[in-house]
Amino acid sequence: MKLLDILTELKKDMKYIEKELYKSVETDQKLLDETSLHLLKAGGKRLRPVFVLLGGKFGTYDIEVLKHIAVPLELIHSSSLVHDDVIDNAKTRRGQLTVKSKWDNRIAMYTGDYIYARAMLMITELPNPLIHQTMAKAMVQMTIGEMEQIRDFFNTDQSIRNYLLRIRRKTALLIAISCQLGAVAAGASSDICRRLYSYGYNVGMAFQIQDDLLDLRGTEKQLGKPPGSDMLQGNITIPVIYALQDEKIRPDLLQLIANIRDGNDMGSVRAAVGMIKESAGMTKAEELADRYMNKALDALEGLPDIKTKKNLRDIAHFVVKRSY
Amino acid sequence: MKLLDILTELKKDMKYIEKELYKSVETDQKLLDETSLHLLKAGGKRLRPVFVLLGGKFGTYDIEVLKHIAVPLELIHSSSLVHDDVIDNAKTRRGQLTVKSKWDNRIAMYTGDYIYARAMLMITELPNPLIHQTMAKAMVQMTIGEMEQIRDFFNTDQSIRNYLLRIRRKTALLIAISCQLGAVAAGASSDICRRLYSYGYNVGMAFQIQDDLLDLRGTEKQLGKPPGSDMLQGNITIPVIYALQDEKIRPDLLQLIANIRDGNDMGSVRAAVGMIKESAGMTKAEELADRYMNKALDALEGLPDIKTKKNLRDIAHFVVKRSY
Repeated sequence: MKLLDILTELKKDMKYIEKELYKSVETDQKLLDETSLHLLKAGGKRLRPVFVLLGGKFGTYDIEVLKHIAVPLELIHSSSLVHDDVIDNAKTRRGQLTVKSKWDNRIAMYTGDYIYARAMLMITELPNPLIHQTMAKAMVQMTIGEMEQIRDFFNTDQSIRNYLLRIRRKTALLIAISCQLGAVAAGASSDICRRLYSYGYNVGMAFQIQDDLLDLRGTEKQLGKPPGSDMLQGNITIPVIYALQDEKIRPDLLQLIANIRDGNDMGSVRAAVGMIKESAGMTKAEELADRYMNKALDALEGLPDIKTKKNLRDIAHFVVKRSY
Repeated sequence: MKLLDILTELKKDMKYIEKELYKSVETDQKLLDETSLHLLKAGGKRLRPVFVLLGGKFGTYDIEVLKHIAVPLELIHSSSLVHDDVIDNAKTRRGQLTVKSKWDNRIAMYTGDYIYARAMLMITELPNPLIHQTMAKAMVQMTIGEMEQIRDFFNTDQSIRNYLLRIRRKTALLIAISCQLGAVAAGASSDICRRLYSYGYNVGMAFQIQDDLLDLRGTEKQLGKPPGSDMLQGNITIPVIYALQDEKIRPDLLQLIANIRDGNDMGSVRAAVGMIKESAGMTKAEELADRYMNKALDALEGLPDIKTKKNLRDIAHFVVKRSY
């Protein structure tokens, strides 16, 4: 199941957003034009624009206004990915060559900077300074989260709290403001905006936990990259943290992680992935994702009973059930 | 002579801006706190904040408002430097270790991203969406300029026009908006803001040409890095372009540049620097910087006769005479 299958009425507008996304990075500078489009055309779920448009349904829905939020949020997300690929030394993403491997690290870094600036330019075309500020705040938190991720690479002693704070910054806040700012730009009440923020935050947490589970459970074809990529780069995710709590497998798992750290050894990655998949770590992480999904559903309770409410419910379920 | 020696009345406010600059990047994330402060405390001329404050003198001068422009502009500049250091593989800047060499490239990249986001956050605290937009526009141009610089590395066939467009984007626009936005935030008339923009643009062009001359002419002690660093990284600047126009030295200079490209050979860098310094390229570049300085002085003509006008004149002269 694809995301837009549960959102048929958004298809037309999402097609328009897709075009606007490409248009937003157009430039005479040929190399930047090429690298930016390469990155954007590699696809993605466009989760953030979808949330912006759905948030907009709770007020005066105007795609010409909402695009100024939907496009920048997807750009910020893409910009962070192209920089992540430099850090992770990633060859492919979504089955396509990354900018850093098709071109080089320098070009990937500047492509990210450019897309980031384009995002700010497009959002600042809306005459609402509070929207600009909310966006900038989320960006500060996101960049802190990225540095935390580097700091925590291969740290097998990190706490669950540590992990949750990191994914909150890295993922959940941007999804939270996607839901919120769509509604803000559409002039919805502050109560509605607040509930949508809370929904988005909790869906974002569930989404990232599910992403971390998929990295262990998915196939190379589904993921567009080899399973266990998180482990390979040293990113210790929640199923791993839970698995490490089991004293029976902890020593062996620690040894495998040390091997990975010392030699980028795919054999150890496969062994570690196998060990974690057989541990209680997977189920515990699924339960945690479910808890966040339920909090997201709770946040929807006070919202007006429009069809969008059902859409948001469906997405929350989709997020924890998806296989891509 | 130091910049603030000609601006004694700004000393107190610039000290305050310096403190606010450090405060603006404060975070509980220890690594980011450390890398950001390392970068900012390495110093710099603080040219952009100075221009913001001087621009503010043409309206209602309020340091509490102006800091929301002065600090972000210095942050954007610093953020671009830390990313440049990754690209240039620079070991030192202003005589201090760069973030990329004290830590690593990944940390430098995320430090730049973080500082960039902090800049946006601080400027968006001003409730004037047009200021946000002007800033974002300049950032788009700056990132395009950075990519152009990579594209043009070791391109010995580039035109003067090409060079001018690149430094316009890389340097002059940010200085132009420093002058302009200080006045905008202080509520100066649009005519004053326009003149200040034009002054800043032309001073910025002169400044960058002078910077490119200093890279050839300065000593390692003055520059905080070895002379000829631009050549070493492949950055073909205006004195080089002029020198290449001289058919008598062109073949030898082309050969030296090819050697540098192929082997990062400091001997060839020294020989090329020597050859350019003896060519007419230096004088021609100085004349070009003077022409921009004169345009900057012209732009001041219509401004009210306050003391700041003299300060701006002095800075324009300083920019083309400085030795650091």
